[in-house]
Amino acid sequence: MSNNSSHADEHLVNRRTDNVRTEQDLFIASVAHELTVFLDSKRDMLTAISPDTLVLLDSIRTLVTGGKRMRALLCYWGWRGAGGGEDSSEIVTAGVALELFQAAALIHDDIIDRSDTRRGGPSVHRRFTLLHTKNRWSLDGEHFGHAAAILTGDLCLSFSEEVFAGIGRTTAAGTRARKVFDLMRTEVMAGQYLDILEEVSGPARPAETAVQRAQAIIRYKSAKYSTEHPLVLGGALACAEEKLLAGYSAFALPLGEAFQLRDDLLGVFGDPAATGKPAGDDLREGKRTVLIGLTLAAAAEQEARFVDERLGSQELGDAEIERIRAIIVDSGALAATETLIEDYSATAFAALDSLAIPLGAAASLRALATAAVRRKA
Amino acid sequence: MSNNSSHADEHLVNRRTDNVRTEQDLFIASVAHELTVFLDSKRDMLTAISPDTLVLLDSIRTLVTGGKRMRALLCYWGWRGAGGGEDSSEIVTAGVALELFQAAALIHDDIIDRSDTRRGGPSVHRRFTLLHTKNRWSLDGEHFGHAAAILTGDLCLSFSEEVFAGIGRTTAAGTRARKVFDLMRTEVMAGQYLDILEEVSGPARPAETAVQRAQAIIRYKSAKYSTEHPLVLGGALACAEEKLLAGYSAFALPLGEAFQLRDDLLGVFGDPAATGKPAGDDLREGKRTVLIGLTLAAAAEQEARFVDERLGSQELGDAEIERIRAIIVDSGALAATETLIEDYSATAFAALDSLAIPLGAAASLRALATAAVRRKA
Repeated sequence: MSNNSSHADEHLVNRRTDNVRTEQDLFIASVAHELTVFLDSKRDMLTAISPDTLVLLDSIRTLVTGGKRMRALLCYWGWRGAGGGEDSSEIVTAGVALELFQAAALIHDDIIDRSDTRRGGPSVHRRFTLLHTKNRWSLDGEHFGHAAAILTGDLCLSFSEEVFAGIGRTTAAGTRARKVFDLMRTEVMAGQYLDILEEVSGPARPAETAVQRAQAIIRYKSAKYSTEHPLVLGGALACAEEKLLAGYSAFALPLGEAFQLRDDLLGVFGDPAATGKPAGDDLREGKRTVLIGLTLAAAAEQEARFVDERLGSQELGDAEIERIRAIIVDSGALAATETLIEDYSATAFAALDSLAIPLGAAASLRALATAAVRRKA
Repeated sequence: MSNNSSHADEHLVNRRTDNVRTEQDLFIASVAHELTVFLDSKRDMLTAISPDTLVLLDSIRTLVTGGKRMRALLCYWGWRGAGGGEDSSEIVTAGVALELFQAAALIHDDIIDRSDTRRGGPSVHRRFTLLHTKNRWSLDGEHFGHAAAILTGDLCLSFSEEVFAGIGRTTAAGTRARKVFDLMRTEVMAGQYLDILEEVSGPARPAETAVQRAQAIIRYKSAKYSTEHPLVLGGALACAEEKLLAGYSAFALPLGEAFQLRDDLLGVFGDPAATGKPAGDDLREGKRTVLIGLTLAAAAEQEARFVDERLGSQELGDAEIERIRAIIVDSGALAATETLIEDYSATAFAALDSLAIPLGAAASLRALATAAVRRKA
């Protein structure tokens, strides 16, 4: 606030901030409510097939309860920024579709990344394995867990689409919103493939281009999907002009890149109590992130070789995780990644400033962006 | 042909049969062509992300090339039976969506069922593991194969939806066709879950209801999905009345049940050269089919226990497979299953006879149905 602003001005701004917060809370509550209504509507259908299948629904419900709802919120402010109304069921439904898509991606991701925990509780495949153990069922409980989670993810992916198509006219064939949604799905799956490909092929590929490859992975598996597409989708649903949508991309793509770089740091240095994931999880999984690429390029030869060889080992012990962390810090890769986050953020915020959108939407996007790049979980 | 029919009549019928065959061949060729065009259209997008991702597309392409196209054909004749025109891009696109959905289901199915072969070649997860081996990449090639196949299946599932939504007005929100498509996805995934649940929980559940449980699995994982929904979808796209759609169900549901019972027999007794699957594959996977349920109910106690205990063992040897096969035959379960197939088929054909649809459509559905229940692969 400028020192010149009067008390009345200050009061106005505070009230506006409160209004925006109330509006955002209302939207989140609506999304949560519609998610519940949708999943409840599937309950009868699944019960008719067999009550045994309700556990699939419960797994999805657990995942879509809570969470930061960042994608739904970006979609909402993309919509509001483009002139979409405050009281619209359409944008709530789009938020629900995005949340369901995110849940589907997380379910399959956790199988792929061998993550046994999600938000501090068991991941979906782990839940099914525990169900197997509890009931003392036959054969391989781990295989059963994976198989059941593959199917739960497929179901959730279908639900996401069902909800999205249900919006109607603005998501019909040929619309801008439909194109964004289709592109989002293709890009995130292709990006995730690049991610697992890099885990196994990284050591055999040129070290000089490791950072570049990691940046391409970030862009597709995360940045476009987590920030750019949701924001553009909201704008498209409100029939925004292409110029505004391009402005959204200019803001959200670097924001998403910063967001994922922060995620990569948390995957190595995050506090398990805050992230809900074991310490150093990404190292055990062998994620070849920008952080790792920078480390391999800057560390002494012997240390780089140690990282290269031990990354992705399922038997990686605490001492080894500590040593890799130390190598990352000492090589300067941690500091360099923080600098990258700053740079991407600066680009994003500059683009945000030049967006011709209402003040409330701009303020909300700024708050979301700040949380995305500064978060601890 | 009746002996009274004149040469001219016979000629007319033959020509009609030829016409129907030509029409069907043309439809299949159109589906194959549109599949190619669609996948080609994704080529540029994936190349832009990274040429490394093209292998996902190639895996999908291999799966949708060939195959019996039973679902697409049922959809076509459901459409034609309801008055849909011969030259319509709409029904071709629906066929493409069904083929892509089937490919997605097969990709995930083969992971779930630990099937390393599909149509005589490697299954998708196996292809990725072989790629890993060939390139001497790091870490666990089997895990990489599974992870890559999960993503390929997700991509294919999204493609299927993208194509389906692209049809436009007749598959928009709230339409009958959209409802069928959404129901189909939910039911097949729930049914597949019941299938894997029965594998692990079957031995602990009441033996008296094993056949009943296996029949519920058949209905949802296969019959509704493979025959009923594709046929009804075709009818719905042509705006058929509910009465005709109910008639389609009365024909296609028992047909689908007979189809799956045949599949279960082939999974145990099929000729590997014809099925493209190793002999006794279903026994090693531990599928608790109606055939197995009947066997457990009818076999002598010691033999039933042997089947119950060894079913699903990954180390099941040829001699054990032979012994289980002999128990199935001797218990009368094989003959009883053949009788069930006859009964379901009779119900299906009777329902087909009472459908008020053009002769060409009826004849084609009869031919498809006969092939489905008498097939050797």
